Amino acid sequence: MAQEITLSLADAEALSRRVLLNNGFNPAHAAAITRSVVAAQRDECHSHGLYRLIGCAQTAQYRGIDPDAEPAVIDQAPSVVKVDANRGSSLLAFEKGLPRLVEKARRNGIAVLGINNSFHFSALWQEVEALSEQGLAGIAMTPSHAYVAPAGGKSPLFGTNPFAFSWPRPGKAPYTFDFATSVVARGEIELHKRAGEALPEGWAIDKDGNPTTDPHAALDGALLPFGGYKGSALSTMIELLAGPLIGDLLGHETRAATPDGQGKPFHGELIIAFSPETFLGDDTERQQRHAEALFEGIVDQGARLPSQRRFAARERSRAAGVTIPQALHDELEALATPA
Amino acid sequence: MAQEITLSLADAEALSRRVLLNNGFNPAHAAAITRSVVAAQRDECHSHGLYRLIGCAQTAQYRGIDPDAEPAVIDQAPSVVKVDANRGSSLLAFEKGLPRLVEKARRNGIAVLGINNSFHFSALWQEVEALSEQGLAGIAMTPSHAYVAPAGGKSPLFGTNPFAFSWPRPGKAPYTFDFATSVVARGEIELHKRAGEALPEGWAIDKDGNPTTDPHAALDGALLPFGGYKGSALSTMIELLAGPLIGDLLGHETRAATPDGQGKPFHGELIIAFSPETFLGDDTERQQRHAEALFEGIVDQGARLPSQRRFAARERSRAAGVTIPQALHDELEALATPA
Repeated sequence: MAQEITLSLADAEALSRRVLLNNGFNPAHAAAITRSVVAAQRDECHSHGLYRLIGCAQTAQYRGIDPDAEPAVIDQAPSVVKVDANRGSSLLAFEKGLPRLVEKARRNGIAVLGINNSFHFSALWQEVEALSEQGLAGIAMTPSHAYVAPAGGKSPLFGTNPFAFSWPRPGKAPYTFDFATSVVARGEIELHKRAGEALPEGWAIDKDGNPTTDPHAALDGALLPFGGYKGSALSTMIELLAGPLIGDLLGHETRAATPDGQGKPFHGELIIAFSPETFLGDDTERQQRHAEALFEGIVDQGARLPSQRRFAARERSRAAGVTIPQALHDELEALATPA
Repeated sequence: MAQEITLSLADAEALSRRVLLNNGFNPAHAAAITRSVVAAQRDECHSHGLYRLIGCAQTAQYRGIDPDAEPAVIDQAPSVVKVDANRGSSLLAFEKGLPRLVEKARRNGIAVLGINNSFHFSALWQEVEALSEQGLAGIAMTPSHAYVAPAGGKSPLFGTNPFAFSWPRPGKAPYTFDFATSVVARGEIELHKRAGEALPEGWAIDKDGNPTTDPHAALDGALLPFGGYKGSALSTMIELLAGPLIGDLLGHETRAATPDGQGKPFHGELIIAFSPETFLGDDTERQQRHAEALFEGIVDQGARLPSQRRFAARERSRAAGVTIPQALHDELEALATPA
């Protein structure tokens, strides 16, 4: 069994900050990225957890990301705030734009935050949950590197384009989902390749557009959208709303944004906030209880609410810290140590 | 071969108005419903076309719908307009709320129209296309009678909950999709039952929650959401945003709204409008061209844009009128004739 190490959340945060500061990130970026990767590690989303710091450091080394970028908040319209990340991480841009987004949503009922010119390497559930912590419902979407063919097509065009939603539940963890609009993450194909295993049917096509279960052929070809033409349509919507609507890139344009084609995706993100209190006024509490009837209807028949595994992990991690492979810890310690 | 009859669009409109007026609908409702069913017939969406007038008339006979209801437009917040349909059709409520929605979206960037207490029997593409005709992007969603089990569950809880999106393309028909979040429409199960055919795998479960290909067992059981837990999550979002957020019913509550459980679904609807010009200012035209690169990327690899069949039918119908079964025409003529 691989050796592992358990860190308190405070120690995980300190390690993350040291890695980031040692790789040129300024304290504001280091703090925002640390909040994100430690939250993901705490929720046992390992691929978005401390592991992701390696990619952050590489992206900074490639100069694909400006680790000292100052996000610029732009009050675009009464219900639109834009943040130009100025080639920095989306995470600090989100944090800078959030108060204005919340204020606009509360005043107007609905509002949008558009993040531009950002490097994006975090899970969207964090951002919609940040809205629900303030009593708002939220939707977030973003394109990413083009790995996915449109339904009926044969070559990569769409990103894996995640879509996330959160609904506030007073006194409880919010109802939250966050899914890729591809059948699976590209990382799953990589894992099958490494394990020498065939892919399930329906995940991917080869470079001629034929269905394949060979992970090598799939990596040369394209992933498929989930749910056939419906998922493909949803992915198109995400490209448009988190791309041209906010004046940013489409999935098939993200790859060229770093000089050598390496580094994390560079693109925009769209976040929509809904304020139930502004929609409902005095009826808000009653409608919050009303929404609970839906969740009960799901759970009572043995189905699960999304994110429950993550929320259970969160409780465990708060009590007992997070456990990562010793090898990852060693690699992070090396990245945290001045050369 | 069944006998058919071809009507000009003007004759189809006149027939629709006569049916509706003869069944108690006031001229404003008759006009709004006629615009909807003739548009659907024109686009060869037969189930939402003239055929739907039979259900409208029945719903009025059951007194499930008020054919004389006056929609009340409520200016809820700077970016929220609500229309209380007052137990009338959603269609007149939409038309009454549309100008305010467009105005709010143009001023604020994004705005919402919430329709309450309405009978809903139309396709959502019409409403999002109405936004795109004004240069806006739109999303529409609504719950409906609960026929769909959550992924991992075993009994009906969600409506077939359609989700529609439209993006304006200057000088062209908009990019539009409109899909149910169930694998198929319930009508497809009915058709298989009538034809004595087994269902494809993955469409439905029986009343004990087991997968079934028997249409009878499926009608006693539940449809499944498209795309597994992802479609199920999307359907949950639709229930929440077009239900409790606007103070209206969940899918599993719609059935009881008419006294005998008959009649068309009674519930709310949510429409979101985005104004690209408000987001983009001087960059609007360039970004509209930018969006076209995505559509070209889809079409150039042999995939199709959604709604193309519908747009082709629209051109044909404008030139040559619409063709319906003689039996349907006879039934409509009977409904149009005072007793």
